[in-house]
Amino acid sequence: MTAKIIDGKKIADRILNDIKGKIKNMKEKPGLAIVLVGNNPASEIYVSSKEKAFKEVEGYCERHNLSKDINEMELLNLLNRLNSNPKVHGILVQLPLPEQIDENLITNSIVPHKDVDGFTSLSLGRLFSGHEIIAPATARAVIHLIESTGIKIEGKNAVVVGRSNIVGKPVAMMLLEKNATVTVCHSKTKNISEHTKKADILVAGQGRRCRD
Amino acid sequence: MTAKIIDGKKIADRILNDIKGKIKNMKEKPGLAIVLVGNNPASEIYVSSKEKAFKEVEGYCERHNLSKDINEMELLNLLNRLNSNPKVHGILVQLPLPEQIDENLITNSIVPHKDVDGFTSLSLGRLFSGHEIIAPATARAVIHLIESTGIKIEGKNAVVVGRSNIVGKPVAMMLLEKNATVTVCHSKTKNISEHTKKADILVAGQGRRCRD
Repeated sequence: MTAKIIDGKKIADRILNDIKGKIKNMKEKPGLAIVLVGNNPASEIYVSSKEKAFKEVEGYCERHNLSKDINEMELLNLLNRLNSNPKVHGILVQLPLPEQIDENLITNSIVPHKDVDGFTSLSLGRLFSGHEIIAPATARAVIHLIESTGIKIEGKNAVVVGRSNIVGKPVAMMLLEKNATVTVCHSKTKNISEHTKKADILVAGQGRRCRD
Repeated sequence: MTAKIIDGKKIADRILNDIKGKIKNMKEKPGLAIVLVGNNPASEIYVSSKEKAFKEVEGYCERHNLSKDINEMELLNLLNRLNSNPKVHGILVQLPLPEQIDENLITNSIVPHKDVDGFTSLSLGRLFSGHEIIAPATARAVIHLIESTGIKIEGKNAVVVGRSNIVGKPVAMMLLEKNATVTVCHSKTKNISEHTKKADILVAGQGRRCRD
């Protein structure tokens, strides 16, 4: 079997173009608020590219840069204002957050209908139980890319390496929902290659090196 | 390796006994409301045994038997009353519900802190993201029984057959949280025995016959 490289950039451009067309026809522009705490270089890059994409499709975007020393209450106050701001339809709090801040608390302080990242417990629970409304974007992208190849997911052996709440676990749930047999491997998996070698579909979402 | 039978009855009796002791020391008895719609014989048996167990530990239990022809609004009204009844600390709506009723809507109408079944999207999302508060009872029982054998779950190959929201998926999540490598098989899995033969831990939670 020869390899077929998936052209992610091309697919992304097509999606952006579609969205741009949809937004053009809207009376009210969709509004996104991006919250960045501290100055983690990776987070800076992620946030800038999300902001750029959102501006490209001509949405309304506001960015809130907060100091890394901010306390939980200040961040909660900002989220409260964004939750009730009618110009803001989606709120994105870039993770990770500094140590003094409870990520789970903050994530779950976003009202469910503005949870564009799909990271609240309610969104994840809906994904888990097959009543998905908003799923985490990276996981959606993975599924979209797999499907773009024309390969049928149903009945395939899918192996997901990594079990983060943002990539590994949501991807696993979405593949299961599409009737794949799903194995989730991670840093504690023994003889990981025994699993990966048998995969029809292999998704690598692990942040560090595996054991073998 | 010789088989070791897990004595579930003995473990259940021990748990019931523990709970009875705890309830004895409580000022206010915990209150459970059980809602049964229609007269599905299996549901009748489940509900009766839950009621019996709860009375055995001397909790306060009220049972609501509703006709199978009830409409959604009548059931929602009952749940609203139970949600705000201070004597009721837990609400259990026996599934399945008749066809005219949206199970997902009804399940998610229970306030989260009274969701003793752990079936609301919020509870499932917490389980999914590792912030479990209330997990579905059958899944918890499976994990408890596995752990009662003294076998360490971490690093094991666990295969779960079945992917219901009540058993298969929650068990898979709980095994993953305990660092097993987890494979979920189901009715669309091909060559299921290839997976089950390699399991260190095998959980069967499938309601119908598998393909091979």
